[in-house]
Amino acid sequence: MEVLQTVFWSAATSRTGLASRLAYSRTKANSLIAGLIEQGLVQEAGLQASSGGRRPETLQLAGELGVVIGADLGATSLDVAVMRPDLRIIASRSEEADVRAGPGVVLARVRQLMRELLAMNGLSPRQVIAIGLGVPGPVDFASGQLVNPPLMPEWDAFSIRDYLGEAFDAPVFVDNDVNLMALGELWRLQRSLQNFLVIKVGTGIGCGIVCHGEVYRGANGSAGDVGHICVDQAGPRCHCGNVGCLEAMAAGPAIAAMAQQAAERGESRSLAEALRATGRLTAADVGQASRNGDAAANAIIQRAGSLVGQMLASVVNFFNPSHVFIGGGVTQVGPLFLASVRQSVYHRSLALSTRHLEIQYTPLGTHAGVTGTGVLAMQEALRLSGAPA
Amino acid sequence: MEVLQTVFWSAATSRTGLASRLAYSRTKANSLIAGLIEQGLVQEAGLQASSGGRRPETLQLAGELGVVIGADLGATSLDVAVMRPDLRIIASRSEEADVRAGPGVVLARVRQLMRELLAMNGLSPRQVIAIGLGVPGPVDFASGQLVNPPLMPEWDAFSIRDYLGEAFDAPVFVDNDVNLMALGELWRLQRSLQNFLVIKVGTGIGCGIVCHGEVYRGANGSAGDVGHICVDQAGPRCHCGNVGCLEAMAAGPAIAAMAQQAAERGESRSLAEALRATGRLTAADVGQASRNGDAAANAIIQRAGSLVGQMLASVVNFFNPSHVFIGGGVTQVGPLFLASVRQSVYHRSLALSTRHLEIQYTPLGTHAGVTGTGVLAMQEALRLSGAPA
Repeated sequence: MEVLQTVFWSAATSRTGLASRLAYSRTKANSLIAGLIEQGLVQEAGLQASSGGRRPETLQLAGELGVVIGADLGATSLDVAVMRPDLRIIASRSEEADVRAGPGVVLARVRQLMRELLAMNGLSPRQVIAIGLGVPGPVDFASGQLVNPPLMPEWDAFSIRDYLGEAFDAPVFVDNDVNLMALGELWRLQRSLQNFLVIKVGTGIGCGIVCHGEVYRGANGSAGDVGHICVDQAGPRCHCGNVGCLEAMAAGPAIAAMAQQAAERGESRSLAEALRATGRLTAADVGQASRNGDAAANAIIQRAGSLVGQMLASVVNFFNPSHVFIGGGVTQVGPLFLASVRQSVYHRSLALSTRHLEIQYTPLGTHAGVTGTGVLAMQEALRLSGAPA
Repeated sequence: MEVLQTVFWSAATSRTGLASRLAYSRTKANSLIAGLIEQGLVQEAGLQASSGGRRPETLQLAGELGVVIGADLGATSLDVAVMRPDLRIIASRSEEADVRAGPGVVLARVRQLMRELLAMNGLSPRQVIAIGLGVPGPVDFASGQLVNPPLMPEWDAFSIRDYLGEAFDAPVFVDNDVNLMALGELWRLQRSLQNFLVIKVGTGIGCGIVCHGEVYRGANGSAGDVGHICVDQAGPRCHCGNVGCLEAMAAGPAIAAMAQQAAERGESRSLAEALRATGRLTAADVGQASRNGDAAANAIIQRAGSLVGQMLASVVNFFNPSHVFIGGGVTQVGPLFLASVRQSVYHRSLALSTRHLEIQYTPLGTHAGVTGTGVLAMQEALRLSGAPA
């Protein structure tokens, strides 16, 4: 068990590397690994570069273990992927979706995509080790159910686990989408960072927290709800009932609303043209206009980035993370958004907490969410399994 | 080792309780404890209430182990206590102090008080197991040194450990005062809460964070620096250089300044009289005037509490703690301060993160800091020691 978890969390490790991570003697590690290879749980995957002497064999979880399926639900999008145990993607599909359609509609589509991806790759549902699902709302991790999700009320207390579990006879694990982005990055980093944040800016704004090397969910699973931190006491009313919430002023819909206003006021020819062409504006249109040098679009992006940075400055003073990774659809508006976030944080936070702080877009990019669903599925399946060692 | 730590962290436990906390068999636990009693490390301390059957013996660390000394330095105060291994206080002393006088002056006084307290109780310096020290600034925990402390620049990188270690030939452990308040409460709670905050409102404002059952210090040891979170973008300039910092608007000196203004403007007879009598006003004067029903004093307390609550609302959305404990000198202004903090948080935070949130004054009260220094000293000494088991 512990050995398999360690192989999973240390991409491309050698026997020696594994022994040192586990604080086992080389003899003990070698003998355990020989047993796991014999059982078909671990496989050798080519030679590593030599650091002098014989080149060590790379170890990874065996493909024969099966596959994991991950599905990352955003408010308006859906990503499904079938992955090997080492999370290399075998097949994936992304499409638009509307979570407000309710769990019946959305999960039926998720199930259908999962079946199609398996069938197209000659895989049977029985080969599925586990399923990981990310959802854009607060999750009670133990039950795998959403709790009072503001964007998707019909999902409240719906048993996602039963619905998908029946279809595949595999364990189903559910977590908040931003927690899963954080888990994905933690896995990519092989836990080399212990304390960092992942901010998702999309239809909503949320934050995944890694603390002491583990994803932190808070006392009731609602940690990271930074979208409803107040950034302007004279700001507009948010759907949550309060005024001046970050989400109401800097998430995708707020950016689209600012763009609409700029177009209608004649402040931007680019945005006015885009509005005429499609009848509505999105954050992507603002990104396009900004790339074309549109001043109004740039100002909108700077305003949104600056507000996200204002929230982050408070959070950084409180939490003192080593890194902040920013992901989600809005980051596709381009580098100006990140520059505005940074400027706002560095201007506002204490020297000590920002001296070594790195703020960047999520290295896993659009794959952060779906990678996280794979990590969740694989990690929890290994924890559940009666596999030896 | 592990057994001693567990005895230390579980006040008044029985053999059975200990076995269950350590996940040992009762036979194994009994045999280890018999050995520790024989070595004089653990002692029996009377019978517990029976839950049917024979009444179990209470176990605690043996007094023969020695004593620990804790010193809690605030910006303007100094508390020193000599404690038994179970942190019962043998003797203590509190007095005013000014950390800005520098480490030479302040630590000489700390050392003198430590010697006096030992001598008055017939204890020799050789009986000191360890020393714990809390300081009002950011600490690099590994070196035990302050790092760029804004309130006490002369202490930057001064080796507190060498200074006190030489005098007592005992290991010295240093941490931020608010982290130690959090550690003290964590010990009092016997780790029954995993995720909570301790806010200290005194000359400065800081926050101790307990995450996954451990004190969390952040990537650079500056986590919890909530005093410089912006609560009013049009607010006054803070000594840190930014504007509208909570500390500049709601800590002790800001409360005193608001009181002075109220007195000078003729808004409060109580405060004007107090100002005439002593030439200066403090938060304690505002508390006294408030208890006498002075409306201006009440308004000042409500304003400070409300600003602290505004910061807390953001922090609670981000961290979703189960409890927030508020301590520090300013809390002595009375219950109106706490009521204002609560009102502000519950008004502003998301329903999910506040549904089960408890906000109260620190249960350890003014002892939270000095208890924390004792926990630090005892815990780290047990970790260092070659004691068996």
